[in-house]
Amino acid sequence: MPKIVVLRWGHRPIRDARLTTHVALAARALGADGIIISDIQDQKIQETIEKINMNWGGKFLFTMGTKWQTTLKEWKAKGGIAVHLTAYGENIQTSNVLERIRKTGKDIMLLVGSQKVPRKFYREQVSDYNVAIGNQPHSECASLAVFLDRYYHGRELAKNFENARVRIIPQQRGKKLVTKKTTIGSKKLAKKTKLDQTRYII
Amino acid sequence: MPKIVVLRWGHRPIRDARLTTHVALAARALGADGIIISDIQDQKIQETIEKINMNWGGKFLFTMGTKWQTTLKEWKAKGGIAVHLTAYGENIQTSNVLERIRKTGKDIMLLVGSQKVPRKFYREQVSDYNVAIGNQPHSECASLAVFLDRYYHGRELAKNFENARVRIIPQQRGKKLVTKKTTIGSKKLAKKTKLDQTRYII
Repeated sequence: MPKIVVLRWGHRPIRDARLTTHVALAARALGADGIIISDIQDQKIQETIEKINMNWGGKFLFTMGTKWQTTLKEWKAKGGIAVHLTAYGENIQTSNVLERIRKTGKDIMLLVGSQKVPRKFYREQVSDYNVAIGNQPHSECASLAVFLDRYYHGRELAKNFENARVRIIPQQRGKKLVTKKTTIGSKKLAKKTKLDQTRYII
Repeated sequence: MPKIVVLRWGHRPIRDARLTTHVALAARALGADGIIISDIQDQKIQETIEKINMNWGGKFLFTMGTKWQTTLKEWKAKGGIAVHLTAYGENIQTSNVLERIRKTGKDIMLLVGSQKVPRKFYREQVSDYNVAIGNQPHSECASLAVFLDRYYHGRELAKNFENARVRIIPQQRGKKLVTKKTTIGSKKLAKKTKLDQTRYII
């Protein structure tokens, strides 16, 4: 299966902190292999992702600080393609764009802006495909989610996150968690992972 | 087709402003009929939604300020059901929960928390179904998007928004907009609708 990595462009610490965290959580929960915050450092988001990985398992990658041009150049040099999510692009529902992307069989860098992107993002030097999750005003977090869910045919939601310390057992009613034996108790762990805070759990 | 209305619970003005806006935009773009901000007033979000509706068309409803208990009671009295999106619920991919919801044929109120929800949200007095878009830490905006996309089988992304002043013509490259003749010029309109700001357009 080709890899998918999200490149978050234009992140502004503080102003975008919660939204970028949501974008990262959506990327992880919906099967992407990692996220790159380009051009800027944000330790807080790094800490959040590392904590999530440690407790909830999996191998979701996080990097930050490299210029987007450099990241993209290296990605393409290794044979990957870039897909830009934008309301101006080809409609994922009414066009065959997803099929064409899938047919390339190549690793995908998903470009997700946090603010208005430079014009060149639409050009082929940058984006191999411009994809719209509908052509209406939108949320990049929602668009990313729908793209990933469709790309993976929904299978990502059944994915097993290896080496998790804590795991949810799905229930019709109430909450059920199992925690691996660790050096700290499960209550403390739940607190540490901010398990009940909407920031991480809807 | 049954109606779907999103109930955003626990919204905190300022702190949640951007996220709730994203939730509302996702709901509208992905075919929901409206959004209710329960328990609290937030004029700014109302203005944003009204502006979006005016320029981009459609009949997306917005209400706010009513207690969630009252809203839900009225909804159920009219024959609607409540679906709570939570990482603890039945997995939409590995269970048949979506099929069961669809089979009811009833209008759906989608409960989406902005902070930790009260325990009773999980009980049948409140939620007829607790649904997880995967059982990992998540973004409510992403979860809402996937639920709607799956519920409507993707058809919502081809939906026509009536009486729009401005419309995107999907393109492989660049941006193409058509604007209806109005009393103000299209450039001014584009500025007015903040067309190029990521808050509305990814």
